[in-house]
This record gives sequence, C-alpha cells and structure tokens, in this order.
Amino acid sequence: MTEADFISTLRHLATAPAARGLADDCAVLDIGNETLVLTYDMLAEGVHYLPDQDMADVAWKLVATNLSDLAAKGASPVGVLLGFMLGDNDDRFASGLAEVLATYDVPLLGGDTVSAPGAPRVFGLTALGTATHCPPPSRAGAQPGDAVWITGPVGGAMMGLEALRASNGAGTDSTAYRRPTPLLAEGQALAPLVTAMMDVSDGLLLDASRIGTASGVTLAIDSKAVPIAAPEDRRADALRWGDDYQLLFTMPTELTPPVSAVRIGTVERDQGDGPLLIDGRVPAADRPLGYRHQHLPPRHDAPQG
Amino acid sequence: MTEADFISTLRHLATAPAARGLADDCAVLDIGNETLVLTYDMLAEGVHYLPDQDMADVAWKLVATNLSDLAAKGASPVGVLLGFMLGDNDDRFASGLAEVLATYDVPLLGGDTVSAPGAPRVFGLTALGTATHCPPPSRAGAQPGDAVWITGPVGGAMMGLEALRASNGAGTDSTAYRRPTPLLAEGQALAPLVTAMMDVSDGLLLDASRIGTASGVTLAIDSKAVPIAAPEDRRADALRWGDDYQLLFTMPTELTPPVSAVRIGTVERDQGDGPLLIDGRVPAADRPLGYRHQHLPPRHDAPQG
Repeated sequence: MTEADFISTLRHLATAPAARGLADDCAVLDIGNETLVLTYDMLAEGVHYLPDQDMADVAWKLVATNLSDLAAKGASPVGVLLGFMLGDNDDRFASGLAEVLATYDVPLLGGDTVSAPGAPRVFGLTALGTATHCPPPSRAGAQPGDAVWITGPVGGAMMGLEALRASNGAGTDSTAYRRPTPLLAEGQALAPLVTAMMDVSDGLLLDASRIGTASGVTLAIDSKAVPIAAPEDRRADALRWGDDYQLLFTMPTELTPPVSAVRIGTVERDQGDGPLLIDGRVPAADRPLGYRHQHLPPRHDAPQG
Repeated sequence: MTEADFISTLRHLATAPAARGLADDCAVLDIGNETLVLTYDMLAEGVHYLPDQDMADVAWKLVATNLSDLAAKGASPVGVLLGFMLGDNDDRFASGLAEVLATYDVPLLGGDTVSAPGAPRVFGLTALGTATHCPPPSRAGAQPGDAVWITGPVGGAMMGLEALRASNGAGTDSTAYRRPTPLLAEGQALAPLVTAMMDVSDGLLLDASRIGTASGVTLAIDSKAVPIAAPEDRRADALRWGDDYQLLFTMPTELTPPVSAVRIGTVERDQGDGPLLIDGRVPAADRPLGYRHQHLPPRHDAPQG
C-alpha cells in the first residue's frame, strides 16, 4: 500500500466537515463559541532532519512547522502536545523545545514519551490554536482573477541544508533550514483578506498546485517574479524545495496585503490545463514539483532538487 | 538522560494550568464556554504490541487507549488526529482504524504520515474531547475517608497477551489484550461523583500509588478484594500488569457508584507510609508496582509479571 493509497483510505474515515477532507493543513472545529484549529505533524530522522543534527534544532523545527500550519489558518496558538522517542542528546532536544516555546509564548500541554531503541527516531507534535478570523482560510477558495502572493523568498532552507551538509554547520548559515520561522502575525493579518492560504512546506510549485486543485482553478505563476534566497542558477530548485514556511495566498486584485509580500502570479479559470501553469506552460511531467517525503541524501552527497 | 529526567525537564515547560503539571492523563483547557480534554499517546512496536500482531488490532488499541484517557476525565470524544509511520500491512491498520472509529462514533480529523523504513514503528494519536462535568476529575482529589473503587477486573490483558504469545492468537481469547474497551459512558456517569479518577493503563498498584502521590494521601488497597480476570495464583501479577483500562476512582463512602464497580480499599491520611499500602503494608521495594515501558519479551518466552 503506498502513502497515497493509505491517505485515500483515511479520507473515507475523515467525513466530518472539521477534517476538511484531509486536504488542508489543519482540522477546523467549532467548539462552543470558539473555532479550534488543530494540526499534527511529524519529523523523522533521515527524512526531515539529518541524523547528526543538533537535537535542539530538531525540537525547534518540530514546533515551528506545526505553528506554521496554524499561521496559515490565521490562528493564535494555544498549546502543543509532544510525542517523543527517547534517545541520544535528549537534553539538547529539551533545550531547543524550551527555546521555541518561549519564543512563541506557547505552553506545553502534555504528550507521551516512548523508549523504543532503534533508528530512525520519529517525533510527533499536535498544535492547537484558536481562529482569529472565521471561517479560517482554506486552500479551496482561490477565485479566477485573484492575485497570487508569497510573503518572502523560497530556497533559503535548501541553501541552509546544503551548507549544513557541506560543513557540519560550522561557519555557514544554515539557520533557514534548522530554525524556520512560523509567520503567525502575518497569518493573522492576512486571514480576513485572503481567498486561499497555505504555508509552503513541500515546495512552492507543488503547494501552489495544491491550492489550484483544492480550488478548482489554475494558478498561473510567473517564475521570475518569485523571490528566492539562492543563486539565480538555482531558481528552478528553489521553486521546488520545501521547508521555507512562507505563506502562499490568493487575494482579490483590488486588495493590498497588509504584510510584506510579493505578487507572483494570477488565478485563472481552469481551461483544461490543470491546477498550475509556470510562465504560461503546463509543468513538465518529468520533474517533481516539490518534496514528497523522499529521504535526505547522506551528508556530502549531491543535493536533490 | 533517563525518561524520568526528560519528563522532569518537560515539567518545567508545562507551567500552564491546563497541563496539570504533566501529572495527569490529559490536558484540560478552557476554550470559550467549553472545557477541552486533550490526550496524546503512542504505541511502539515491541513495547506496546508484538511485531507480528494484526495491525488492525494495533489501530484499535491506539485509538482505544487514548479514548480511555478521555473516559477517565468523563469527556465526550470529539475526534482524533493520527501520526502514522507507513510500513507493512497498512491496509489492516486502516481497517482496524475504521472499525474502532465507527464503534465509538469518533471522527478522524487529521494527522500526518511519514515513510521512515526501519523498525520499530511508532504510532501516535491525539484524542480531543469535551468535558461533560467541570472541573473534570483529576488524580489529585482523593480525600482521607474516601472509598477506592475499580470498574472491573484486572489481569485480562495479561492473560490475553500470554495467550497471543503462546498460540499465535488462534483458538484462545486474547481480546482483552488486543482490543481494550474505553469506558466512556462509565467515565461520564462517574465524573460528577468522584474525588479522583484515572484509567488503569500501567498496573493497578502503580496507578493507585499515582493517585496517592498526586492527592498527598495513602491508598490502602485490600489485594484480595480486587477482581481479577486471571487464575488466583496469578493475583500478584494481575495487580501489576497494565493494559486493562478499567477506571480506578475514589469517592466519599456515602455515595454508591452509578456503574458496575467493586470497592477495593480506603483512602487514608499519609502517616509517613507513602502513597500506597497493600493489605496494610508498604509495598516491598524489590518488585515493580506496574508496567514502565519495559520491552515485551519475544513470543514464547516466559511472561514478565
């Protein structure tokens, strides 16, 4: 059974409206007079982080990636629950966890630890937030004529991982890969204005195509307009790498985003081209649009685009 | 760093009242006009289930153990989020998941899957519920003079695991181990009446001592009064094995439980004996009171008590 098959099976179990058909970053649930936003993401050794990375950075990333999902819903974080596999350097993990929770003023509410020796280690986190605007943005509301925007450059995490792999992290800036920033304030400012929003975790082009699919429209991206934090000759890679956690959103053209953002395209009616056009063309089928859980190559190997 | 050290470190991060000092089965959180109850438990291959078990049973147990935590708070389940490592027999897992969610009428709200080849597999689940009585019971309210009760026998899961290991599951009843029952209706009926309550997941004596510790009292247990689902010569083991998910609770003596339950002891002032007395004696230090994440012995080995 492939991951796609398994998720397809799960979708049949996720019939509650709150589950949003498992086609969103978060579950959105009306509880009493509040709207809860819930996300659950995992980090696996060798998939989402390098086995010899500082565990403090792994803790940071585990929390930050989940908070980024809340940011994409314009939610305000309420707390997190941690699923932890005991192992090496747990003190460093605890230290990074303390740092990221303090930075974003989010309490640890609970969780579980297991002792299950053997690689790879896998960590899970549930983050819980409350919506600041209802309904919270989804991926499904992009309208033909909307503008497509992104809050900042992509490719920084790609360069950070390459720096980390090349140098063991000393003397080069791998921060963008190790310590992503969840754009919570930006998400809250945007939530009342956008027609669709998500955080770019798996690659800009792949995530843009997901908004297109969920909304039943075509996102026409001007690849040259996308801000990148990488050399120009790596533009094609930067558009496909994940882990940058910028917010990608669509908005009526008459509105101006209240946060720093760059316009990178236009939403069009789907005239049979599918969810994504890059510079007016349907993307070539021979190259992935983004990151789909491939394993990280060992340190010093050539990076995958 | 040991598990106890790590959890002690986490406790310093879990300062929100909702976290209950990580000394409870659940986080309890006031959101708007509702009280949310949140739990996160993991199952690890070789620790919480046998590597060759039917994955449908593993899915059942993952959900049921988390719902049991909600039961101990008298909560009504709202939904679950799943953390899943892809592997063998994922179709069986999906089938068991569908079955347990339908049985307890709980929707899947979201989650994450990772592909991280390599044993052991670890699964996580967050269950979310709303309190039916406020404040929800904790472990910390037992009062001297209260009676100590349990909703049913312990030792059934122990016998079930032994049957499963001895026979590969054919022809013997291992249901109690494979498919525990979360006592949701019982927990809701008891919540307004109890002074302390928890589900017995790690062994009756260990869990009783936890209520004693959290409440600052001594639970005096009459070991012969405890109902067991095991031969009489295994009584001492049955009192120490986990996985039965009965509800253990304390209640003023003038009250009668509204559900089937057996009285097994009395709450006393702690006169220096610590949180637990068994038949009037402080438990011997040379034998564990319960289950603390030891690894399951391989099939056909002698069971651990």
